Amino acid sequence: VLVRTIGSFHVGGRVVELRGLASRTNTLVPGSPPVLVDPNGDFHVGQMYIQFVRLVRPRATLPLVLMHGGHVTGACWETTPDGRPGWQSKFLEAGFDVMVCDTVERGRAGWSRFPEIFKSEPFFRSTREAFVLFRIGAVEDYSTNPALRRAFAGQRFPLAALDNFAMQMVPRWNGNEPLIEAAYDAALQRIGPCLLLAHSQGGGFAFGAALRNPDLVRALIVIEPGGAPHPSAETVESLRRIPMLFVWGDYIDRVPFWAAVKPSVRVTCDALAAAGGNVEWIDLPTRGIRGNSHFIMMDDNSDAIADLVIDWCDRQKLRAPGDAV
Amino acid sequence: VLVRTIGSFHVGGRVVELRGLASRTNTLVPGSPPVLVDPNGDFHVGQMYIQFVRLVRPRATLPLVLMHGGHVTGACWETTPDGRPGWQSKFLEAGFDVMVCDTVERGRAGWSRFPEIFKSEPFFRSTREAFVLFRIGAVEDYSTNPALRRAFAGQRFPLAALDNFAMQMVPRWNGNEPLIEAAYDAALQRIGPCLLLAHSQGGGFAFGAALRNPDLVRALIVIEPGGAPHPSAETVESLRRIPMLFVWGDYIDRVPFWAAVKPSVRVTCDALAAAGGNVEWIDLPTRGIRGNSHFIMMDDNSDAIADLVIDWCDRQKLRAPGDAV
Repeated sequence: VLVRTIGSFHVGGRVVELRGLASRTNTLVPGSPPVLVDPNGDFHVGQMYIQFVRLVRPRATLPLVLMHGGHVTGACWETTPDGRPGWQSKFLEAGFDVMVCDTVERGRAGWSRFPEIFKSEPFFRSTREAFVLFRIGAVEDYSTNPALRRAFAGQRFPLAALDNFAMQMVPRWNGNEPLIEAAYDAALQRIGPCLLLAHSQGGGFAFGAALRNPDLVRALIVIEPGGAPHPSAETVESLRRIPMLFVWGDYIDRVPFWAAVKPSVRVTCDALAAAGGNVEWIDLPTRGIRGNSHFIMMDDNSDAIADLVIDWCDRQKLRAPGDAV
Repeated sequence: VLVRTIGSFHVGGRVVELRGLASRTNTLVPGSPPVLVDPNGDFHVGQMYIQFVRLVRPRATLPLVLMHGGHVTGACWETTPDGRPGWQSKFLEAGFDVMVCDTVERGRAGWSRFPEIFKSEPFFRSTREAFVLFRIGAVEDYSTNPALRRAFAGQRFPLAALDNFAMQMVPRWNGNEPLIEAAYDAALQRIGPCLLLAHSQGGGFAFGAALRNPDLVRALIVIEPGGAPHPSAETVESLRRIPMLFVWGDYIDRVPFWAAVKPSVRVTCDALAAAGGNVEWIDLPTRGIRGNSHFIMMDDNSDAIADLVIDWCDRQKLRAPGDAV
């Protein structure tokens, strides 16, 4: 692809001053003179990180903002765990300017001292928990020995590369949601009109961002969102103006969390449809596409699912006709 | 630039199992059903993250690996705090395939529970501490009010954008050096022969990586390294075969840490030169280039300093003649 710019920025958050904490000695580089470090002072907290790749000749009319889910960073959109090009590449090749987010507390966004600034301890996700919650296989078929793991029959997640996926998991906090929401708002104000493509936990943040910035969010693509707003009359009136695509994978009924979340999101989708909203609900198994895990963008048919999303964008006239870039 | 691939991978580290910790309740998405989280289990620890951009027609014969310094991530090579293209872009335009590292514990590499896995508490760097240690200005000229800050006379760091820089700082640990060294070794084994360009704390890791992987490190560019190996006969014999460029900014004598580090690195450089090593030491002020902070790649003359590095690469025959890419 012919790239005009690659770059990044941090956005959002505020300055917090800490006082009254005791100093500690640190050695900045092995062998270098020790320095006394004062943990007090002014720190920027609550910011997020956005990396952008802009094409010389984009075909999409607006940039596509990729919002990751829980316990991961924007790296989830890059190369798949088994080494294939990820959705960042796929959408660039399809002519979208792509912006990849690391939300507050994750990846290059950085994180803050707790409990002084962030108010609680972080959670770390084990590979076993990911295997189960992301619907790769049943808990009794997990082993810390990769050779002994067994996935659900027909599983498309690259099981042999599960440890590569485990390497990209990062801690998360419970309670930072207001910081994350504020940072996404600041990001949207800076980016301007755009298309949001969000996964899992990012889906809930995308709905919220759309509600608070209805003039800036021109389309919303949610891949297995972790939740959706309760469809009050006000919410429906605001969201029904935004073209929206929902995509769901397989094995939903095998994990109680997803078996509960999916129908609750469906209630919102149906309310939007009933109010004349421009919504499409793609349940991959009912289209005969079986075997997708929660991390659809990493599954062995990730390119084909991206093509479904791109086809929807084309039908929404979010991309101009043309050649590959 | 005409880009062939953008992607990333995680590399290095190992699996650690935690046992005996108490479970906690978490709500994964506001409004979603609470889940009981078992903090025990298997976690991948000690990995690092590398993002690569490969050109269709690279002019450099080997990929350039950018190694960041302390308290920052690979984002330090991207857009400068005041919004200009950073060294990642500059070297891509010059025809280098560029790989940007987030080392263990930083950015998209992720980090591990402490004190169970990482053995100590992290350090957070205040904006004030950065202002002083990175030689932007004197401590008495710092204020938490950006309008009241005053930099050293002639300062090239974009002072008005200091808060944008503060937003990209992340925590670090003391004692993770062996993990970081092992991860860089694993990265080099995967990348193969390459050029290392390292800043600050990353400089020490680059020297170490070169000592342990002398067949893979084909050139070493250190921008204000935080340290260099003691020049024992064995060290000199190994390192003197590697072309090496040192670059230093201004105001070194204003900060005791750097006033101590620079001459200690010079001892190693001189020992390599005395043994016939192919070393070049660029002290920018003695060349009449004044005003550079510790973060030379963010200063207002960052493009010009990158050109000095590229010129050195050309003299070392690390880049083929040709047009811009």
